[in-house]
Amino acid sequence: AEEAAVRVQAETVRRLKQDKADPDEIAKEVAKLLEMKAQLEGDEGKHKFVLKTPKGTRDFGPKEMAIRERAFKAIISCFKRHGAEVIDTPVFELKETLTGKYGEDSKLIYDLKDQGGELLSLRYDLTVPFARYLAMNKITNIKRYHIAKVYRRDNPAMTRGRYREFYQCDFDIAGQFDPMIPDAECLKIVHEILSDLQLGDFVIKVNDRRILDGMFAVCGVPDSKFRTICSSVDKLDKVPWEEVRSEMVGEKGLSPEAADRIGEYVQLHGGLDLIDRLLQDPQLSQNKLAKEGLGDMKLLFEYLTLFGITGKISFDLSLARGLDYYTGVIFEAVLLQQENEHVEEPVSVGSVAGGGRYDGLVGMFDPKGRKVPCVGVSIGIERIFSILEQRLEAAEEKIRTTETQVLVASAQKKLLEERLKLISELWDAGIKAEMLYKKNPKLLNQLQYCEDTGIPLVAIVGEQELKDGVVKLRIVATREEVNVRRESLVEEIRIRTNQC
Amino acid sequence: AEEAAVRVQAETVRRLKQDKADPDEIAKEVAKLLEMKAQLEGDEGKHKFVLKTPKGTRDFGPKEMAIRERAFKAIISCFKRHGAEVIDTPVFELKETLTGKYGEDSKLIYDLKDQGGELLSLRYDLTVPFARYLAMNKITNIKRYHIAKVYRRDNPAMTRGRYREFYQCDFDIAGQFDPMIPDAECLKIVHEILSDLQLGDFVIKVNDRRILDGMFAVCGVPDSKFRTICSSVDKLDKVPWEEVRSEMVGEKGLSPEAADRIGEYVQLHGGLDLIDRLLQDPQLSQNKLAKEGLGDMKLLFEYLTLFGITGKISFDLSLARGLDYYTGVIFEAVLLQQENEHVEEPVSVGSVAGGGRYDGLVGMFDPKGRKVPCVGVSIGIERIFSILEQRLEAAEEKIRTTETQVLVASAQKKLLEERLKLISELWDAGIKAEMLYKKNPKLLNQLQYCEDTGIPLVAIVGEQELKDGVVKLRIVATREEVNVRRESLVEEIRIRTNQC
Repeated sequence: AEEAAVRVQAETVRRLKQDKADPDEIAKEVAKLLEMKAQLEGDEGKHKFVLKTPKGTRDFGPKEMAIRERAFKAIISCFKRHGAEVIDTPVFELKETLTGKYGEDSKLIYDLKDQGGELLSLRYDLTVPFARYLAMNKITNIKRYHIAKVYRRDNPAMTRGRYREFYQCDFDIAGQFDPMIPDAECLKIVHEILSDLQLGDFVIKVNDRRILDGMFAVCGVPDSKFRTICSSVDKLDKVPWEEVRSEMVGEKGLSPEAADRIGEYVQLHGGLDLIDRLLQDPQLSQNKLAKEGLGDMKLLFEYLTLFGITGKISFDLSLARGLDYYTGVIFEAVLLQQENEHVEEPVSVGSVAGGGRYDGLVGMFDPKGRKVPCVGVSIGIERIFSILEQRLEAAEEKIRTTETQVLVASAQKKLLEERLKLISELWDAGIKAEMLYKKNPKLLNQLQYCEDTGIPLVAIVGEQELKDGVVKLRIVATREEVNVRRESLVEEIRIRTNQC
Repeated sequence: AEEAAVRVQAETVRRLKQDKADPDEIAKEVAKLLEMKAQLEGDEGKHKFVLKTPKGTRDFGPKEMAIRERAFKAIISCFKRHGAEVIDTPVFELKETLTGKYGEDSKLIYDLKDQGGELLSLRYDLTVPFARYLAMNKITNIKRYHIAKVYRRDNPAMTRGRYREFYQCDFDIAGQFDPMIPDAECLKIVHEILSDLQLGDFVIKVNDRRILDGMFAVCGVPDSKFRTICSSVDKLDKVPWEEVRSEMVGEKGLSPEAADRIGEYVQLHGGLDLIDRLLQDPQLSQNKLAKEGLGDMKLLFEYLTLFGITGKISFDLSLARGLDYYTGVIFEAVLLQQENEHVEEPVSVGSVAGGGRYDGLVGMFDPKGRKVPCVGVSIGIERIFSILEQRLEAAEEKIRTTETQVLVASAQKKLLEERLKLISELWDAGIKAEMLYKKNPKLLNQLQYCEDTGIPLVAIVGEQELKDGVVKLRIVATREEVNVRRESLVEEIRIRTNQC
């Protein structure tokens, strides 16, 4: 009976795949199938457990790691180009360190079991641990990056790059500086990384919490509702205005007039021209916060003009960002749809970077409440992986997962000792070398291994070569073979693989 | 009253430091002091929480990270030299994945709180997740490395490099191969890494679980006591034989005769000569397991001779290793004391690498129990960090924590825009550049920043230079200044910093 159920489930999966159904749905049904199978096998044998990774997590095999390392390399080299130091913090924090920092999202925090001792939680982002680090070490001035995994008990949508365990790549500048200079650098960094990774066209939306708050004030939102109305505005990238409006009015009790006035503002986006227009806006120009924010926004755009990147920047009044701790500039980079080039307005396919200014967070940790102004950016690497993976798959590019330069092989039997001696010499000289772990491997199998793994050279030892003091070096791509004197072999391999 | 208590505690810490007391004791008292201080401040203000990282964990600041990255670089380049791929697995596993793999140590596993859904635990090592990964993906053949943090609720001894969150650097070879070839490569890897890191003299102890089991058998240990007596032997690197013997006889109920016979064997260590002697041993040579193990040990030593590393290898019958899952060769590298060179026999200061063969672990995960033979090595990086840190501190070497090549500076006021333009050009050309985030920084402060952070070059923009189309390039070390045409600046910086 159970076996029949597995067969039915397998049929369901087959059908969904055939119909090219939603990948998340397929993944769900596959998981169900695997679980049923494991159950079935478990019932038969001694192994009752399900062989899987926890929900919302995954392993990275060698191929995925090769792609991941490419992306990290681009990101790290950008962070280093901007003079950042690097730090690391523990994967868990005292539970109370995270308390009160994430608003509604706190329910997504992973707690550790109370096994005696301190109450701990897995980190939810890298920003709060960074602020804790600054306050704890009384650091008032640092530019650092931090690349590490964070944890959220969210509903995973793994095919869209949303996981429960995922990497964040954060760059932050902490310290009291002249306005908007570090803020502009953060945007430059996003621009450099997205250009470097060649992910396609993108736009970086910019706004300022002070402009938002000023806007809410002049639209007639009561002070107490600023944050919750801000959360509603934050949904505008996913749901249409009408829905957001009805949430504001229906659920959150905002007056329809106030909502409509917000509705007019949040459809605005542009550049310096829009900033100037709003600086003249009869209402906004009367609001102190909005004026401050708009003044800084203008300064920011001047700096971005000097950086030559305003072409990809959009001052967008609908950008709100979810997190509570932002106090000034906020921004978010989205990739633009490219498949259908006939569409008038490019559609965004998702956020790949975001950040902003949070001048109050460090003060929440300092016993005396001393503030350290901070601005930072977080690169959403998982979505970038998904895109790079899909692209490499589409291009059918073969990715090497090792850097091996040469395979040490033998043409005849009984040469294991000679292979071991030669490979040891090569390792000691810094050459990346492999050999098959067999006493008497066939030459054909050794050559096939090079084809499969992309090793470019084969160093072949044979009776005659040993007598002559040479090694036969074979270039896999051309099948060319040359005899190289043993003492020149290292140099020859270096030249031929361009690795010195 | 509380303030007085803090003062008393501070005095205690001062005294301990003055007396150069045990670092762990000092650390304990410092922690107490900090906690008392935080408590005091908490009582006064609104911030009641303790500002710290969880017990047994630490932050890595920029300096520690610079040291850590040096060590990682040496290790990773060795793993890559040997043709390893890289994988990554989630930081937590299903709780049942870890169940029954660690024997008595299971109590040290961190569990996550049951928040609905699966029961999870933080990984305890990288070997069990690796075995789970192989079984889950039906991989029977791979050579991979994995560098990641693992978690143990142990009693931390942080000054001696023992933490609750710490890195492991693992290299493993999985697959059915001819005997002892991959095993020999693992030892070669340990030898290369320890030599490369220049940690001082070391010895790699080698033994085999089959030899141990054979030895127990011929000494008259009942089968059922093999594992527990093995645990006792494992303590020999920390406690003297007399204590181990009394544990065997007193707590574990072994006959005094059997214990004494074990006592004779476990003091033996040597090389090929010892292996040959034991192969002639009237008892051991009659035991099938021991004979197998000794035969393979002989083969291993032949390969290690070809690798030229037997000088640092010691076949040591007292080596047992704690973990249950080993089935063949086991090994452990220890650094040798160097301070006191008059001591006859060098004293070991601690294990920095270990590993062995575990042919049964993957089969525990496979629904059909299919085995995948594995052998691997784990580098104990935390102790290596401690040593490198102490050495750098002793040498008073200044460690750079950034790679910045040039600071973009100005000699006069009102040149912020020009600095922004120039630094943007440099970034876009791939030059690592910084500037101070001030509108009008003093030249002296800018030069001082370079001194402090080790930036070798300063690109100075000034009114006259702008008119002349040049930038003044200052070499910080020599205070030499040269005018460089703007279009040649990037090239000049590259040449002067040797980074192309």
